[in-house]
Amino acid sequence: MRLRNVKGKEEIINNSKYIILNPKEYIGKWNKLFNNNNPIYIEIGMGKGKFIKDNALKYPNINFIGIEKFDSVITRAIQKIEDYDIPNLKLIRIDALELDKIFRNEISRIYLNFSDPWPKSRHAKRRLTSDIFLKVYDNIFKDRMEIHLKTDNKKLFAYSIESLSNYGYVISNVTLDLKNEKIDNITTEYEEKFMEEGQLINRLEAHKN
Amino acid sequence: MRLRNVKGKEEIINNSKYIILNPKEYIGKWNKLFNNNNPIYIEIGMGKGKFIKDNALKYPNINFIGIEKFDSVITRAIQKIEDYDIPNLKLIRIDALELDKIFRNEISRIYLNFSDPWPKSRHAKRRLTSDIFLKVYDNIFKDRMEIHLKTDNKKLFAYSIESLSNYGYVISNVTLDLKNEKIDNITTEYEEKFMEEGQLINRLEAHKN
Repeated sequence: MRLRNVKGKEEIINNSKYIILNPKEYIGKWNKLFNNNNPIYIEIGMGKGKFIKDNALKYPNINFIGIEKFDSVITRAIQKIEDYDIPNLKLIRIDALELDKIFRNEISRIYLNFSDPWPKSRHAKRRLTSDIFLKVYDNIFKDRMEIHLKTDNKKLFAYSIESLSNYGYVISNVTLDLKNEKIDNITTEYEEKFMEEGQLINRLEAHKN
Repeated sequence: MRLRNVKGKEEIINNSKYIILNPKEYIGKWNKLFNNNNPIYIEIGMGKGKFIKDNALKYPNINFIGIEKFDSVITRAIQKIEDYDIPNLKLIRIDALELDKIFRNEISRIYLNFSDPWPKSRHAKRRLTSDIFLKVYDNIFKDRMEIHLKTDNKKLFAYSIESLSNYGYVISNVTLDLKNEKIDNITTEYEEKFMEEGQLINRLEAHKN
């Protein structure tokens, strides 16, 4: 996700209670930062933050960390959550390729929601489910690897099934029409818009032991 | 697929040059029947037979066997192909659960096209990708197991991904919109109708070594 420039974003980011400005210092120590031993779930590309905020509010016994690389996007997220007081939520501004520089065997689940599909074949490696990224994820997971993915993009969904399966993940809880499933679903900003437009949302879970 | 009763079907079946009436006698000997060592591909639930007939004509160096359990359906298929002379094509009237009574380590690929989705959960085991059937397939495959599946049914597709993946198959060549893929695609009767109606066709390949 990219957004128009947000004025004063550096100041907003530097002063947010949610942002961890020096995440590399916490490698191997995230549970200490949260001051508990609860599982840590991250969302890569959290956009404007609705999904991870709603999750953090609903599941106080899970620690959530939102990952986002674009300043303007993370600023919008901060503006939306700064009025809340959510102790089990943190945000980090970093490129996903660097995740193994800030986490080491301490993440229990990764959420990928409506990630950039990078439709051109020559950009396939930039997709968050390419083996380049799956290798990075290997190092950050605690034990059982678990990825939950949602997307409206049929090609990204198909690619992700292939890539995850080929990498040794087992795929479960697949749907090609999330709206009509009777499951508890916390939505993203994008997802609500897509559903209103009648777009089909695809979802899967993948795990590797 | 079920069809209205076809008159004289027993006679048509008994006299077809394509039908193998006593398939259990050929277990382990199908390559002898075809008089060559070419790979054998089967389609389970071949319906009116267009897909397997077109494949057999296009790929003379592969042996094709169409499997169908309903008399009236297999009779329609015979009526459509009896005028051709296709040495690499045979048809068998049998329930797929009995496939391991007629094949033993001699099949190289299984096609599943627009199989009955059995939408009710309590009928899930009847789906041709349930583990009941996958266990049967284990015994008929030669070495590398390979299943190619097409369906318009989103729930059957989702279920099949889960079931195959959980059973140890690796999923590849996935598409959620076959019509818009630039690949060589031999269609079934149903598929042409669905595509005309604008229905999306899902396709995948699965393999296990």
